[in-house]
Amino acid sequence: MFESAELGHKIDKATYDKAVPALREALLEAQLDLSQSAKFPVVILLSGLDGAGRGETLNLLNEWMDPRHVQAHGMGEPSDEELDRPMMWRFWRALPPKGKTGIFLGSWYTWPILNRVNGVTKLADLDQSLERARLLEKMLTDEGALVLKFWLHLSKDKQEKRLKSLEKDPKTRWRVTERDWQHFKLYDKLASIHESVIRHTSTAEAPWFIIEGEDPRYRSLTIGKMIHESIRKRLDAPTVKPVGLSAPPLLPSIDKLHILKALRLDQKLEKKAYEIELEKYQGKLALLTRDPRFKEITVIAMFEGNDAAGKGGSIRRITGALDARIYQVVPVAAPTEEERAQPYLWRFWRHVPRRGKVTIFDRSWYGRELVERVEGFCLESDWMRAYGEINEFEAQLVRHNIVMAKFWLTISKEEQLKRFKEREKTGFKRYKITDEDWRNREKWDAYENAVCDMVDRTSTERAPWTLVEAENKYYARIKVLKTVCELVETQLKQLKKSKDS
Amino acid sequence: MFESAELGHKIDKATYDKAVPALREALLEAQLDLSQSAKFPVVILLSGLDGAGRGETLNLLNEWMDPRHVQAHGMGEPSDEELDRPMMWRFWRALPPKGKTGIFLGSWYTWPILNRVNGVTKLADLDQSLERARLLEKMLTDEGALVLKFWLHLSKDKQEKRLKSLEKDPKTRWRVTERDWQHFKLYDKLASIHESVIRHTSTAEAPWFIIEGEDPRYRSLTIGKMIHESIRKRLDAPTVKPVGLSAPPLLPSIDKLHILKALRLDQKLEKKAYEIELEKYQGKLALLTRDPRFKEITVIAMFEGNDAAGKGGSIRRITGALDARIYQVVPVAAPTEEERAQPYLWRFWRHVPRRGKVTIFDRSWYGRELVERVEGFCLESDWMRAYGEINEFEAQLVRHNIVMAKFWLTISKEEQLKRFKEREKTGFKRYKITDEDWRNREKWDAYENAVCDMVDRTSTERAPWTLVEAENKYYARIKVLKTVCELVETQLKQLKKSKDS
Repeated sequence: MFESAELGHKIDKATYDKAVPALREALLEAQLDLSQSAKFPVVILLSGLDGAGRGETLNLLNEWMDPRHVQAHGMGEPSDEELDRPMMWRFWRALPPKGKTGIFLGSWYTWPILNRVNGVTKLADLDQSLERARLLEKMLTDEGALVLKFWLHLSKDKQEKRLKSLEKDPKTRWRVTERDWQHFKLYDKLASIHESVIRHTSTAEAPWFIIEGEDPRYRSLTIGKMIHESIRKRLDAPTVKPVGLSAPPLLPSIDKLHILKALRLDQKLEKKAYEIELEKYQGKLALLTRDPRFKEITVIAMFEGNDAAGKGGSIRRITGALDARIYQVVPVAAPTEEERAQPYLWRFWRHVPRRGKVTIFDRSWYGRELVERVEGFCLESDWMRAYGEINEFEAQLVRHNIVMAKFWLTISKEEQLKRFKEREKTGFKRYKITDEDWRNREKWDAYENAVCDMVDRTSTERAPWTLVEAENKYYARIKVLKTVCELVETQLKQLKKSKDS
Repeated sequence: MFESAELGHKIDKATYDKAVPALREALLEAQLDLSQSAKFPVVILLSGLDGAGRGETLNLLNEWMDPRHVQAHGMGEPSDEELDRPMMWRFWRALPPKGKTGIFLGSWYTWPILNRVNGVTKLADLDQSLERARLLEKMLTDEGALVLKFWLHLSKDKQEKRLKSLEKDPKTRWRVTERDWQHFKLYDKLASIHESVIRHTSTAEAPWFIIEGEDPRYRSLTIGKMIHESIRKRLDAPTVKPVGLSAPPLLPSIDKLHILKALRLDQKLEKKAYEIELEKYQGKLALLTRDPRFKEITVIAMFEGNDAAGKGGSIRRITGALDARIYQVVPVAAPTEEERAQPYLWRFWRHVPRRGKVTIFDRSWYGRELVERVEGFCLESDWMRAYGEINEFEAQLVRHNIVMAKFWLTISKEEQLKRFKEREKTGFKRYKITDEDWRNREKWDAYENAVCDMVDRTSTERAPWTLVEAENKYYARIKVLKTVCELVETQLKQLKKSKDS
């Protein structure tokens, strides 16, 4: 796999000096076209061996390219902000928007490989990390990103020579660290891990390019040309009319039964009983979130439901129990311009809270499986792949000990009509009812189907949906509060258990 | 994930009896259209819990569908023929060709799940199997197959009820085995593994469909309708004009150096020395293949190279050392009609030998990366994804202790001209030189690029390419023979080691 990158590739100074001005001009032009068309983002990874020139390449590319349209990311040790969130969060926040280029010196490969080399993790952990990397890159290319992965390589002899020559020169001695020599001793082991990483994550859409790192002129010119040609190729590609997926259709419903119909909407709670229960569970939640161990966990609660099902009311009964400094409510409406220039899940990743915090989403990433699907705002292929992307997103959250509470609030069609009419009558509630609500109501059955598919495909053991019978508001609010308490309690107990053991 | 399949779906007899004739007619019609257009194959997996009706469904579908266009596969315990080859071989040989339908009762999921449930394998092994499953299904859908994966589910209560009622009736008692009850006891553990399997292998192109298995009428009608609608949807989809991949281009060559140029073609071997070496290594190979432990391994040797580089001659020097009963030479030419109706790698999978055998491919699956790429016989997206498919194919072979010897024989452009002219002069060699050879010669540089990319992307630690300097035939033949001997010897030693330990 590294054969071509151990041949001693070289470019002489004259050739290099002649080629660079033309390349820089072409690169700038491509960047400008990309920025103006804002057709796609460019994600560049610089990976590879110590001393193979990753840092120099990053600096050079930054010099060659228009700084307004490119951003370099060192991605060294994660900050405490970053450690408080799932590993991928730091990459999501650094993704370039459409029209721009992001260059990553460290990437989603760096730590999984290092941890494996240093024996911190097992082979199985590395495999899982590689699966996560593949899924992330598949999402990026599905969303239209150009992903360029460069692997800078040095043969064993060359690496030794380079480290020694750097050490000899007092001016460069500081660049050789103890870690560099440790890695050199592990060369063969590393090479074998690297090969496996490259093989498992070279896909047709996001292949690795292995570049010999020895000669700076060769490596710079090759990478520069490659970036230019890739952007050009993609810019000049004919815009393909998107076509529907030719995957099988979803399950036909041949009886009238589905999960929503199976709910018993006649469950009631009287006002008096409600007030007692409310006090009980709000008190409990208040205590739980003030528990010292709560600082180690995170809560994400997420509300979807029929229009007028009482999402807002339920949310207020949760926030009513919380210290204002620890929670945030994120109302999800149409994406902003900045959000539209990013992959679909970006606008939710940006709100993933730190440890010790609670974030409540009023509507959520499931919009893609609900309104966007039903209204045709996205392609079938988009919402079909989103089931997997969402499962992976939530899996990353729960792996990070985040409590995931997912609520679907259900009311009957008749109850909705009643509530709509009430809202129209009541002055201060009138703003809550719009033409769109009435239009959505006409597509009741399509929405019901979409909800059933959504629950079937995204209710998982560790991030299950809670379906809430919301015909009676009191009943619904208590069920929500109680569920949140239970989930937090379970998580705190698990924390204790894993500490005890 | 199983919520919708635990609701107690039911279809009454009258509805069922009314629906079935129309469904059967529609199914037959779709099958006929599919068979006549031969547009794509249909692969149906029936998986799920014991007692959820997989077997009955298989029988019913076979009854409903036209037996000329459908084939059922039980896929129980593998035969000794199958055990002698990598696990996936049995599925490759059973794949339906374009226009036909294959229904699999057991699948590439069955044994990985069973082995995990029974504690034979670790979680990491299951993860690897799931990756393999995903890659296989991606290959199938990339090749145009319609993949329908049904998961028949029963709730815990329902499964117990069903097993008990089968046991009560003397006519059905035989259908309940000890294993069924063992599995029932593991219900919760199983459900958790199943959920993980379904989540990790539900993709947009090949999603799982979870079906409640309790009511035979509900389950049959749902699956029947689903199959009909899926085939119809795909048949009626507009034929999409294939477009090129918008992936980055391959590495530009900015110096003149590449792996083929780096070979020293001036290496010589005199005839006398050759004859001595030939006897030595043929003798060695003869002994190695007669070693009793050789019965436990398999050898696949594969030859690619420039036209007239001497592939045939090298192959004959290997076969000259072998017992005719253990080897087979597979010359790879244009695919047959039957082969064209299958995924690309199918025609190579069919020749994977049993243990104790040697198969020599004269040209190979790398045709896709060489002639098909250079001559434009396939799309860029096809040969780009083929690198990964081939790596996965070979990884399965080496995991099964198959010795992989991959040879590229290189001669210079001048030497080729000399040999072409000689062939034209010599009567019995004239058949070996065709117009096509002269045409290929004109694309020398394009082929060289393709070879370099191929070696870079498919030379792996366990299945490396051996580049052979073939300017001197004697030198080349000895290098090939010696390499084969070394690879076989290493494998036999490893066998011994793993037995000793």
